Amino acid sequence: MARTLIFLQNARRCLLFNGRLNLLFVPSSSASLSKLAGSQNNRRCHATGSRFTRSFCTTSVNLEVSLSHPTFMVWSSNTGVGKTLVSAGLASSILLLETKPSNPLNVQYIKPVQTGFPIDSDSRCVYQKVSEIFHHRRPSRSIFASNHVLKASEPALEGLVGVRTEDCTSGSIDGFRDLGLYEERELRVPGSVHEGSKLMCKTMYAWKQPISPHLAVERESAFVSDSVLLQSLQQNLLFQTREKDAFGKCQLWNIVEIAGGVASPGPSGTLQCDLYRPFRLPGVLVGDGRLGGISGTISAYETLKLRGYDVAAIILEDNGLSNEESLLSYLHNRLPVLVLPAIPRDLSDNLMEWFGKSWDVFGSLHSILVDDYTKRMGRLHEMSKKAGTIFWWPFTQHSLVPEETVTVIDSRSGENFAIHKVKKDSNYEFISHQFDACASWWTQGPDSTLQMELARDMGYATARYGHIMFPENVYEPALHCAELLLLGVGKGWASRVFFSDNGSTSIEISLKMAFRKFASDHALFCPSQLKSVEGTEFKVLALNGSYHGDTLGAMEAQAPSPYTGFLQQPWYSGRGFFLDPPTVFCSNEHWNLCLPQVFLPYKLNGEVPAFSSREEVFCGSRDSSELAGNYSNYIHQQLSLYRGSKNCASIAALIIEPVIHGAGGMHMIDPLFQRVLVRECRNQGIPIIYDEVFTGFWRLGVESAAEFLGCVPDIACFAKLMTGGIVPLSVTLATEAVFDAFKGDSKLMALLHGHSYSAHALGCTAAAKAIQWFKDPHMNPNIIATGNKKLRELWDCEMVSKLSSHSAVKRVVSLGTLCAIELKAEDSGYGSLYAISLVRQLREDGVYMRPLGNVIYLMCGPCTSPQVCYQLLSKVYRRINELGASAGA
Amino acid sequence: MARTLIFLQNARRCLLFNGRLNLLFVPSSSASLSKLAGSQNNRRCHATGSRFTRSFCTTSVNLEVSLSHPTFMVWSSNTGVGKTLVSAGLASSILLLETKPSNPLNVQYIKPVQTGFPIDSDSRCVYQKVSEIFHHRRPSRSIFASNHVLKASEPALEGLVGVRTEDCTSGSIDGFRDLGLYEERELRVPGSVHEGSKLMCKTMYAWKQPISPHLAVERESAFVSDSVLLQSLQQNLLFQTREKDAFGKCQLWNIVEIAGGVASPGPSGTLQCDLYRPFRLPGVLVGDGRLGGISGTISAYETLKLRGYDVAAIILEDNGLSNEESLLSYLHNRLPVLVLPAIPRDLSDNLMEWFGKSWDVFGSLHSILVDDYTKRMGRLHEMSKKAGTIFWWPFTQHSLVPEETVTVIDSRSGENFAIHKVKKDSNYEFISHQFDACASWWTQGPDSTLQMELARDMGYATARYGHIMFPENVYEPALHCAELLLLGVGKGWASRVFFSDNGSTSIEISLKMAFRKFASDHALFCPSQLKSVEGTEFKVLALNGSYHGDTLGAMEAQAPSPYTGFLQQPWYSGRGFFLDPPTVFCSNEHWNLCLPQVFLPYKLNGEVPAFSSREEVFCGSRDSSELAGNYSNYIHQQLSLYRGSKNCASIAALIIEPVIHGAGGMHMIDPLFQRVLVRECRNQGIPIIYDEVFTGFWRLGVESAAEFLGCVPDIACFAKLMTGGIVPLSVTLATEAVFDAFKGDSKLMALLHGHSYSAHALGCTAAAKAIQWFKDPHMNPNIIATGNKKLRELWDCEMVSKLSSHSAVKRVVSLGTLCAIELKAEDSGYGSLYAISLVRQLREDGVYMRPLGNVIYLMCGPCTSPQVCYQLLSKVYRRINELGASAGA
Repeated sequence: MARTLIFLQNARRCLLFNGRLNLLFVPSSSASLSKLAGSQNNRRCHATGSRFTRSFCTTSVNLEVSLSHPTFMVWSSNTGVGKTLVSAGLASSILLLETKPSNPLNVQYIKPVQTGFPIDSDSRCVYQKVSEIFHHRRPSRSIFASNHVLKASEPALEGLVGVRTEDCTSGSIDGFRDLGLYEERELRVPGSVHEGSKLMCKTMYAWKQPISPHLAVERESAFVSDSVLLQSLQQNLLFQTREKDAFGKCQLWNIVEIAGGVASPGPSGTLQCDLYRPFRLPGVLVGDGRLGGISGTISAYETLKLRGYDVAAIILEDNGLSNEESLLSYLHNRLPVLVLPAIPRDLSDNLMEWFGKSWDVFGSLHSILVDDYTKRMGRLHEMSKKAGTIFWWPFTQHSLVPEETVTVIDSRSGENFAIHKVKKDSNYEFISHQFDACASWWTQGPDSTLQMELARDMGYATARYGHIMFPENVYEPALHCAELLLLGVGKGWASRVFFSDNGSTSIEISLKMAFRKFASDHALFCPSQLKSVEGTEFKVLALNGSYHGDTLGAMEAQAPSPYTGFLQQPWYSGRGFFLDPPTVFCSNEHWNLCLPQVFLPYKLNGEVPAFSSREEVFCGSRDSSELAGNYSNYIHQQLSLYRGSKNCASIAALIIEPVIHGAGGMHMIDPLFQRVLVRECRNQGIPIIYDEVFTGFWRLGVESAAEFLGCVPDIACFAKLMTGGIVPLSVTLATEAVFDAFKGDSKLMALLHGHSYSAHALGCTAAAKAIQWFKDPHMNPNIIATGNKKLRELWDCEMVSKLSSHSAVKRVVSLGTLCAIELKAEDSGYGSLYAISLVRQLREDGVYMRPLGNVIYLMCGPCTSPQVCYQLLSKVYRRINELGASAGA
Repeated sequence: MARTLIFLQNARRCLLFNGRLNLLFVPSSSASLSKLAGSQNNRRCHATGSRFTRSFCTTSVNLEVSLSHPTFMVWSSNTGVGKTLVSAGLASSILLLETKPSNPLNVQYIKPVQTGFPIDSDSRCVYQKVSEIFHHRRPSRSIFASNHVLKASEPALEGLVGVRTEDCTSGSIDGFRDLGLYEERELRVPGSVHEGSKLMCKTMYAWKQPISPHLAVERESAFVSDSVLLQSLQQNLLFQTREKDAFGKCQLWNIVEIAGGVASPGPSGTLQCDLYRPFRLPGVLVGDGRLGGISGTISAYETLKLRGYDVAAIILEDNGLSNEESLLSYLHNRLPVLVLPAIPRDLSDNLMEWFGKSWDVFGSLHSILVDDYTKRMGRLHEMSKKAGTIFWWPFTQHSLVPEETVTVIDSRSGENFAIHKVKKDSNYEFISHQFDACASWWTQGPDSTLQMELARDMGYATARYGHIMFPENVYEPALHCAELLLLGVGKGWASRVFFSDNGSTSIEISLKMAFRKFASDHALFCPSQLKSVEGTEFKVLALNGSYHGDTLGAMEAQAPSPYTGFLQQPWYSGRGFFLDPPTVFCSNEHWNLCLPQVFLPYKLNGEVPAFSSREEVFCGSRDSSELAGNYSNYIHQQLSLYRGSKNCASIAALIIEPVIHGAGGMHMIDPLFQRVLVRECRNQGIPIIYDEVFTGFWRLGVESAAEFLGCVPDIACFAKLMTGGIVPLSVTLATEAVFDAFKGDSKLMALLHGHSYSAHALGCTAAAKAIQWFKDPHMNPNIIATGNKKLRELWDCEMVSKLSSHSAVKRVVSLGTLCAIELKAEDSGYGSLYAISLVRQLREDGVYMRPLGNVIYLMCGPCTSPQVCYQLLSKVYRRINELGASAGA
């Protein structure tokens, strides 16, 4: 009825094992592991030694996880809790389920990492147990079963009877032989007219020693990297499933079983919960029914949640301790907990009686997972429609967003979104990665390692603090964050930290600070009466094209634009005096200066020169250039003209975005101009505000963009990337002199501005972690630690040059984590829909961008590897080339 | 050299055990546990059964944890990993450390929960092992050692030789005998002139069966509640330490060892990591050095972090697997990991050789813990000073906040702060709980259970999503949160959800929405040109005393006040038409109506009546009263007068805080007046905004305060309590008609307002959890589920009545989670410093309040037990009484 055939795939000759099953099969209990416990040595380790240094996270951008059929991970809280028996029971339940004759169910079981091979082989155990169960239960449908071991270390081969190393197809790669050990059998139902089911069991990588994979790798010199392992797993998962309805919906199940416990290291040492995270497969957690098992099971569950996994069910062995009751109470009944009968400890037991007693439990597990899969898919299908019906997206004309253009984002892993996609022709559904190249509105910094660190930190901060009100109180995260800010972006000038919630509020606060300072310095209010001198009116000095936020106070500090009109905010009046700034950009392979019209009267001797390099733009020696003098004259004259005009309002603050105008179109402002402007205002007693909401925290390659200007502000605002991009938090930093302007005997003299969540613990905790992480060369491989810390060049200079001379490109600005490209286009306003087709194509390439009119940009995190940036830039270049070609055609 | 004496404390006679140590001592390996694994039954549990229902969290408000000496928990990842040996080794290292002659070190070892007693007795093991180590190491100082078992279940007594039940001092309470089993010995150093050290080992509660405590409780009918256990532990920890320098600094160590793993259930079934959380003691985690131990150790560590615990070190047994290397890599070297030699498995081994080989490791552990304690104390000492130096607190005149009044908040547990305190006379330092009665600026809702749930959710949301940009995208937390909002506070009217970051931004957005709707309805702009009709100017209709936030746009919608003057925001002009509202309050045991001056022309027939009850205030039948007609006439007339005045601006929005003006002084506005106002505005085509930032989500006892008014808005704003008080998030809900006013062909017609963290995943996840939790009668015991859901009365009516008639009290407003009390005072303005002394006294009583001028208030969470509210109210009443008495004196 069954035949066993073992051969080396593509090998010169076949070898028969003659069904020596006992040799290969050992129940996956802890029996074989206990041998290890004896080995002892007196090594001591004390954590004061060498510092750990990270290399880049290299998440695969081309990841694809099929959703056309259920795929579940089998996790466990510990070794020896019966994980493989659960896999076997689940697989049997699926395969032996009575379905319609036309719909056989097929199961692929994958064990990516197997140690202790061939004594331990979980794929063979599943293969074998399903066969035995088949014989016991006598179903109406045949099954074609196979077991396949793909790669094994050389020592692991030694344990195989009749297999010699030279029998393997290929030579050893990274210490592995491409084994292709294969066996199959047909479990035939005599006379059955139904189409047969398939069971495909696979072991991807096998090592001989029954120890943790990362140790086996070392001891057997057989290494597989995370990315190769994931690619291989992905290939196996996609096997036969990309084809149109290869197995139909729900007709194939994938079961992926981990090695050891949830946080056991994989071959590279990466914890398995981290290793498999890019797939984020839903899972079954095999808990521990023994004494102490409640704790282990709950902890394992929490470890999975702390990696963003969904657990569909917990299943555990009954040891007479009712562990499931504590688990249900902990879970508030939100998750099913299933209990299996006690597993016989007798190794000679073939477990058929046990599987018989467990049959209903596996049936329940099976239907729970069907339910889970069905619900998940149902939700994914309705999300885009629901979103369009009940969301009110910011900055979005809903009429222009049809349902099919809504992006359904399943999760994020470091810089990558995991997006739900449907291939229109085949209805093939899958999860695909896209690089978040707009850094989610410029907030994002973490790679996947930092994201998981922050996850634990956010859990900790919530559990320790929740939120605690700030005024007159102190708690660690707020203090620590404030200290780090003053040692970092505020170093050398700031001494006070005012917390608020977002960039816009931090700007409103900065203006209030500046106005008070100005009023105080210029005797424009009477402290004893807490009133202003009659007729006092304040304006801000700002640059055209700068942007400071959407609340009214912040809007008033920017020049009129489509953001500020009557349609948007009828109360906007534009309380500023706005200057046109000179800009810098790369075009035709050179960094050039562009002077606005207003500079025509200030003629230079000859042409405005191109810079020899981008570095020259920031060079301090430019201070003594003629251009610097002209800038100074221009600014001086403009301020005089303003004062002489009928407008009698005082300019009570200067506000600038240092170096880059973000929302205004990614324009690089000549830093020399901003420096001269700051000096001029300082001379005139006008408080200076840097809006570093966009530019701060390595966005431009240095921690504070003030470093580029070479002069410090009185007040500065930070937000976005400050928390690593996890939660909203902002700060307004100020000098002690600014702070002093609010001192007095009365509370009414104080700055009466505050938000409920001022200095909330989660935000401060995230900020403290991100601030330290990004600047630590041990954590951020991009940090160049010699001299003033800065990021290495992330955007390949040659590629930037090439882009800048492309016929479709007007200008390029690359600095720090930003590479912005302005396309040549007739309509260059904000409302432009240009570049949208380009962006759409790039999304197909796995790059998620959002255009700013005819400006497209790539934005990575401070830890993103230059290799990834290179790939992004290449993709953009290729698409621009195509665009140019099709435009030319 | 040593003597052993065992007696029943306070008992009629003593019993000698004759040193039968072997009877009582079994090494705490897993040997005795393996017996259990055999028990089997085939019970199945499937989580579709009865729903779990919670009762109130009753955290002790009078909690006190001494900081005058180090106290550490010993946690472990699992049973059988050598936790008690670590305790013994650490205790020995402390006791045998060579210190100055005058400074003996003392150790108290506490095992709160012991099962398997007397076969297993960890306190006896520590007592015994330290004694043996003493004899081996021959230190220069004597030790007086004792072991004390306080309470044991009756079955546990049976195992004790020579102890009969009737020998115990008292009868059985909750199934326990007050055992007082005691033994002591003097470990004498002949001829030593040094003062001796003390070792006090204690077992608090003991059960016979070697199973999880929650099962032993059941099987031996001996129950101890969480609060009794914590109180008892607190008493033991404070033993001899409250006295002035009882042991001097660092001269006493407390070691508290848990039972089983970190998340093993305690006697009540509460997981131990949750049970001991109110103390939040720092800990040592004893990890698992076996195969699979990396996973278990990391998971246990994460479980502790998810409860807000600090771990000072991880220590684990060497099993030749180098587990410590993986741990160090996971921890990025931030935490020391110590490795102990393998523990002999031979039960006859007295372990002295092992302790000898481990001596240096325990020495390292000891100094790591000294360091940890010293650093923690150093930080606590400097925090208040540093805070005053670098923070810029909102709404705070720093000159009025001397260092000693700054509150150092170590953590939060549910509604309670854990605060660092120093007794001035004795320098005794401790952590004390204070009820956060200002709900941290009205944001707080969670009890300790919900807080820990949110901690796991925040970890999950960070790991799964981090933050994902919102426009044109959809991801689960945002969609789920939006759906819940429309099914809850927006039910029956709202169809769109616009997310932003805080109350103030949600108000700015609501105004933009209202203005566009008004302009659209009244043809005040020309869609084709995207411009306004010439001369259009918009104002809002609002109530005097209402407050809507601190950003300029929100400020413009409120009447002039100290918040809005030139000193605070020179750009404020007050773009509103402000009406004086009638208010309602309880005074002299009655709910009364107070009509402002403006109502004098609208004379009522006779006096304004008092209400028979608070419920009558909200009664719909008042609509047909004469008062309703007068309200209507007044409003109508005012609007006509406004239109007739020279001011030609249109009233384009009504904005109100329904029922309660929060920041304006906790005034209850007559809901009839607000209802009439809303109806009048609706008739006149003025869009209606409810500012529910303060009033929403059960703050007033109903999910939305709109329920009290009986009429719905066009737009409503929510924030604060929406996320349960964990992270900032706000929403502006709107009707489809409002949304439609932004539709068009051009992006420029869209609402061009947005914040980087719009609909951030953490906020939406927290909101979804909190929204569901608060309204679920299974989770929130305060929910009355009959009819429209509402909270039960939290503030004892009799007590409120009594307060309202107190001579020092002007008025009381109690509604939902709020109980506000206005004190009689000359100076009732915001700047008033009145009531500050009252608040200071209440902080001594464990109640953290912040006054609003002469208004003090208590604010609890939607899940807070009415018993706790009663205690709070009693404390306030007592202090007000004292205040009255001293004022009268």
